[in-house]
Amino acid sequence: MPDDGRSFVLTLGCPDRTGIVAAISGFIADIGGWITEAAYHSDQTSGWFFTRQAVRADSVELSIEEVRERFARVVDDQLGPESEWQLSDTSAPKTAVLLVSKDSHCLTDLLARVERGELPARIPAVIGNHRDLESLTTRFGIPFHHVPFPAGDPGGKAAAFAQVRALVDSYNPDAIVLARFMQILPADLCEAWAGRAINIHHSFLPSFIGARPYHQAFDRGVKLIGATCHYVTADLDAGPIIEQDVGRINHDQTPADMVRQGRDIETLVLSRGVRWHLEDRVLVHGRKTVVFA
Amino acid sequence: MPDDGRSFVLTLGCPDRTGIVAAISGFIADIGGWITEAAYHSDQTSGWFFTRQAVRADSVELSIEEVRERFARVVDDQLGPESEWQLSDTSAPKTAVLLVSKDSHCLTDLLARVERGELPARIPAVIGNHRDLESLTTRFGIPFHHVPFPAGDPGGKAAAFAQVRALVDSYNPDAIVLARFMQILPADLCEAWAGRAINIHHSFLPSFIGARPYHQAFDRGVKLIGATCHYVTADLDAGPIIEQDVGRINHDQTPADMVRQGRDIETLVLSRGVRWHLEDRVLVHGRKTVVFA
Amino acid sequence: MPDDGRSFVLTLGCPDRTGIVAAISGFIADIGGWITEAAYHSDQTSGWFFTRQAVRADSVELSIEEVRERFARVVDDQLGPESEWQLSDTSAPKTAVLLVSKDSHCLTDLLARVERGELPARIPAVIGNHRDLESLTTRFGIPFHHVPFPAGDPGGKAAAFAQVRALVDSYNPDAIVLARFMQILPADLCEAWAGRAINIHHSFLPSFIGARPYHQAFDRGVKLIGATCHYVTADLDAGPIIEQDVGRINHDQTPADMVRQGRDIETLVLSRGVRWHLEDRVLVHGRKTVVFA
Amino acid sequence: MPDDGRSFVLTLGCPDRTGIVAAISGFIADIGGWITEAAYHSDQTSGWFFTRQAVRADSVELSIEEVRERFARVVDDQLGPESEWQLSDTSAPKTAVLLVSKDSHCLTDLLARVERGELPARIPAVIGNHRDLESLTTRFGIPFHHVPFPAGDPGGKAAAFAQVRALVDSYNPDAIVLARFMQILPADLCEAWAGRAINIHHSFLPSFIGARPYHQAFDRGVKLIGATCHYVTADLDAGPIIEQDVGRINHDQTPADMVRQGRDIETLVLSRGVRWHLEDRVLVHGRKTVVFA
Repeated sequence: MPDDGRSFVLTLGCPDRTGIVAAISGFIADIGGWITEAAYHSDQTSGWFFTRQAVRADSVELSIEEVRERFARVVDDQLGPESEWQLSDTSAPKTAVLLVSKDSHCLTDLLARVERGELPARIPAVIGNHRDLESLTTRFGIPFHHVPFPAGDPGGKAAAFAQVRALVDSYNPDAIVLARFMQILPADLCEAWAGRAINIHHSFLPSFIGARPYHQAFDRGVKLIGATCHYVTADLDAGPIIEQDVGRINHDQTPADMVRQGRDIETLVLSRGVRWHLEDRVLVHGRKTVVFA
Repeated sequence: MPDDGRSFVLTLGCPDRTGIVAAISGFIADIGGWITEAAYHSDQTSGWFFTRQAVRADSVELSIEEVRERFARVVDDQLGPESEWQLSDTSAPKTAVLLVSKDSHCLTDLLARVERGELPARIPAVIGNHRDLESLTTRFGIPFHHVPFPAGDPGGKAAAFAQVRALVDSYNPDAIVLARFMQILPADLCEAWAGRAINIHHSFLPSFIGARPYHQAFDRGVKLIGATCHYVTADLDAGPIIEQDVGRINHDQTPADMVRQGRDIETLVLSRGVRWHLEDRVLVHGRKTVVFA
Repeated sequence: MPDDGRSFVLTLGCPDRTGIVAAISGFIADIGGWITEAAYHSDQTSGWFFTRQAVRADSVELSIEEVRERFARVVDDQLGPESEWQLSDTSAPKTAVLLVSKDSHCLTDLLARVERGELPARIPAVIGNHRDLESLTTRFGIPFHHVPFPAGDPGGKAAAFAQVRALVDSYNPDAIVLARFMQILPADLCEAWAGRAINIHHSFLPSFIGARPYHQAFDRGVKLIGATCHYVTADLDAGPIIEQDVGRINHDQTPADMVRQGRDIETLVLSRGVRWHLEDRVLVHGRKTVVFA
Repeated sequence: MPDDGRSFVLTLGCPDRTGIVAAISGFIADIGGWITEAAYHSDQTSGWFFTRQAVRADSVELSIEEVRERFARVVDDQLGPESEWQLSDTSAPKTAVLLVSKDSHCLTDLLARVERGELPARIPAVIGNHRDLESLTTRFGIPFHHVPFPAGDPGGKAAAFAQVRALVDSYNPDAIVLARFMQILPADLCEAWAGRAINIHHSFLPSFIGARPYHQAFDRGVKLIGATCHYVTADLDAGPIIEQDVGRINHDQTPADMVRQGRDIETLVLSRGVRWHLEDRVLVHGRKTVVFA
C-alpha cells in the first residue's frame, strides 16, 4: 500500500496521569491506524501531557468524522473533561491571510514557499496598510487589499482595523500572519484571533520589545541579533513564542546592516513558525508553546 | 509521590507495523508505569520502528527482572523475533574507560563532567599510550595505566593492544571512549567492543578522514571546521555517527588556530555523544544511529 | 559632508613584506582619501598579503582613472610586479547573469534581493535549460532565455553550451551565477569565466561531491547538512570556496525533508557569496579565497 | 628569520579623520615593523577610529620603551590628545585572579586552558566565598583563598569585599574574572577594577537580568538560552558586552536541564571573552566594545 501522504493528525493536551499513551495508542490500533509520526511531552511543571500523532489516512477505514466521534468517547471515558484536542485531515487545505506594510522580505518568502508547495495552505488575500507591496502580491496571483491607516487619528485607526477584521474574517483563515505589519492589533482582535494570529518581531524577545529593536540592539552593543515568531496577545510582544533564532554581528555593523542581516533571520523564523502552526505542530499552554517540530 | 529520579529505560528497535505503540504502552500501563519520556521513530527507508521510554521506577511495583521477563513475552507475542531491546535501571551505575594519548582537552572535560555528576558513569581507569596525561588523571583520583605503543613495530603494537584489551575488559565497561587516542583499533577490538567503543574525529566526517584533518581543512579552504563522534568500526572513521558539530573559521586562521578552536568543538561533541550513549539514547541500526536526545 | 555612500574600493594581493600597509595608506592619505573600511590579511603559509579598502569617493578630488593611474605607480615602485589589484567605483552598476534549471528557491531569492536593493547588481537575463522558471523570472521583469539541453546527446549539449556562452558573454557580466543549474560547465567555459562563475553545491564540500548529495548524506547518517558556494573550476565541486553553512538534522528526516530544509541553507549561502563577490570582498589565491566580509 | 611568536601589540582609539592609518602604518614601517595582524574600525556613530596591530618583535630593533616613546610623539603630533592607546609585549606574562563560588565549570575550564597554554596568563590565586572549589583549585597547583560572605549582614559583606579587594590588588592583575561568583560587586570595586573585571552572566543580556535567569527563561518559554561575558560596571549586568552565545532548547527542557546545557555556553563565552581581553583584542568605548577577534 503506497503512502499517498494523506494523514489524520491528532493533537491533544490533558492533565497527565498513567495510561494516557496506552489509551491513545490503543484507540489508534483499534481503528487499524498506522502511526507515521508520534511525539509526546510530559510537562513536569504544569502536570500536563501533550501529544501529536500522524496516522496514515489510508490505513483507517473510517471517515474523519467517525474517528472524531469515537475518539471523543475515549476522551470522555479516559482522559477527562479538561482535555483539549483536535483531529485534522492533511488533505483539507488550510487558509492563511497575510497582513503587511512596506517591507517585502517576509511576504515574498511566504508567497514563494506557498507557490512551491512548502506550506500547506493557500493564501486568499494579502492586506496592506500601504500600497507598496501590491504589485509584488498580485504578481503571484494573490488579491491585495489596501486598508489605509490614518496616522495620529485613533478613530480612523479603529475604523481601519474594523475593515481589516471584516476582510480577514470573511476568509475564516487558519492563520493570520503579521508579516512585518508594523501595527499593534487592538485587544478585541487579539482575542478574536487568539491562537491564529502570528507575528514576527525583529528581536530576540524578551529583549528589545517595541519599536526599532535593531537600533536598541546597536545601542546596547549586543553580539547577536535575533527574531521571534509568536502568537499575538493583547500584551505587546509577550505572546507564546513559537520560534526564535539569532545571527552573529560585530562592531562593524551599523543599524542599517543589522536591518539587512536581520531580514534573513526574520524570514526564516517566521516561515518555520507558520509552517509548524499550519501542520498542527504547535500546542499552546498558558503563555508557552509545545512545538513538535 | 515525589520523583526520586530513578527510572527504568526501555529501548527497542523492531520491524514496523501497526499496533506496536499500543502493545508497548499497553504493557507499561498494565504494570502501572508512569512514562516521563517517550520517543518514537518510524524509519520509512528501512521499515524499522524505534522507541525509547523512561518510566518512573517508583510507579512500578515489580523488580526490573520481573519487568524484563514480562516484556520479553510481549516481544515474543507481538513484536517479533527480530526485535532488539534492552531495559536498564538508571540507578545502576555505568562504567566508562578512557583511552588517551597526549591531548588533554577531552580527558579534562570528561573527568570534570563525571565529577560534577553530569555523566551517569564512573571512570575506573584511564589508559594512555604516553605518560603525558598521568598527572592530570590521578589528580581527579582516577587510576592511570601507561601502555606504551612502540612506533614502527607491528608486533609490539599488537602486544600493546592485547594489553589494552585485557585492561579494558577487566572492567567490562559500558563505554570505551577514545578521547583523542590517536591509535587505530585493530579489527578484532572493533568487533569485541562493537557498540561500546566511541571515538571523536576532529573533522566533519565524511570530509577529511584520517590524519591531520585540520591541515586538510586548511588546504581545502573550507569555511567551517567540525568534529564527529562515532562508534568505532573496522572501517576507519566510517562507523555510525552519534553527533557532529562545526564552528566558523576564516582566512585568518592557521592550522594551529584551527587546532585550538577545534578543541572546543571536539570536547562538546564527544561529551554529548558519550552522555547520550550512557543514557541509552543512541540506537544503532546498520551504519546509522537513531538518537533520542 | 554627508556620506552619499559612493566609495572607491581597492583590493590587492601581493607578496608580503614590511611597509606595504604604509605604502597603501600613505597613498590614500596623499589623495585625501577617507577610509571607511579597511581589512588586511597576511597569509603566513603562502607569504602573500591581501587587503581591501573602501574610501569615500567624495573625499577624493580625482577621477577613478586618475586614482588608478597613480596607484599603478605605487604598485610598480613599492609592491612589485606580482601584485594583483583592482579599483572599482560602487556607483558603477554591476551585472549578474543567472543560469537555472527547475528549482526556484535560489532564483526567487536573488531576484527579490536585487529588487529590494540588497545586491549591487542588475540582472539582464536569466537562462534556463528548462522553461519551468520562465514565468517566475518574467514576473520580476527580467528576460528569460530557454536553452534546451538534449539528454544523452553530447553534440547537442556542446551546442547548447555554445549558445549559453554566447548569450552570457553578450552581457559581459561581473558574475555568472549557477543558481542550481544542475549542468556541469565544460572546461572551456570554466576557463573563460574563471573568477566570475559562482556555483551553489548542496552539500558541505568536500563531502558529497557530485549528484544527489542529500541522498548521500542520508545514507551516511550525518547529523548536519550543508551547502557550499564556490567559484567554478574545471575540477568538479573543487573550486575555491567562498561561503559554507550547515543546518542540524536528525534521524526523523527523510531525503525529501533534507531537500526542503537544505533549500534555506543553499539560498542563504549563495546570496552571501554572490553579494561578497559583487562587493569585491572575495580575493582568490590559488584554490582558496580571502573573504573580507 | 623564523617567527618566535613574540609580538608588540598596539591598540588605539581616537577621533576619526583622514590620514590616521597612514600615520600609524608609516610609523610602524619607519621602525622596520613587520605587521602580522592589523584590524581597523571606523565607528560612524561615535566618529571614533579604533585599531589593533600586532608587529613581530624581532623585526623591530628598538626596545618596547623606545617604541612607546616614539609612538607617543606620533599621537601628540597627528592623532590628538583624546587618543587612548597602549603597547604591550606578548612575552610579558599577564595575570588573572579568579573569583568563584560553588559552581565549578568555568573554573575548571579556565584552569585547564591556562595549563595547556591557551590563555596568555598565569593565575596566582583563586578566591572563593565558599570552600567548595578549594580542592579543585589546589589540584591545579593554584592557591585558594576562602573569604566567607555572611548572608544578610551588610557590614560583614562590606568587610568581606574589603578583604577580597586587598587580596586581588596585591596581585595587580590584568584581569579579575568573576567565574560564576554570584556576588554583586560594590560600586567602589567596580570603579577600581574598571576595564579589568569580567563577569559571565547566564543569560543572553539584556534579557533576564539578575537572579535565576534560566528559571526566568523557562517561565517565558524562549527557544534559545544564552550567556553573556561583559565588563563589570556599577549598573547590574549592564556593562560593555564582550561576547555572547546561545544554544537551542525545546519544550522538553526543565530549568535543571537548562542549567546543565547552559554551563557549556557559559564556559565557552567566558573563556573567549577572557582570552580576547588578555590578548588586547577588546577596546571599550562608552558602554560598548570593539572586539578584534
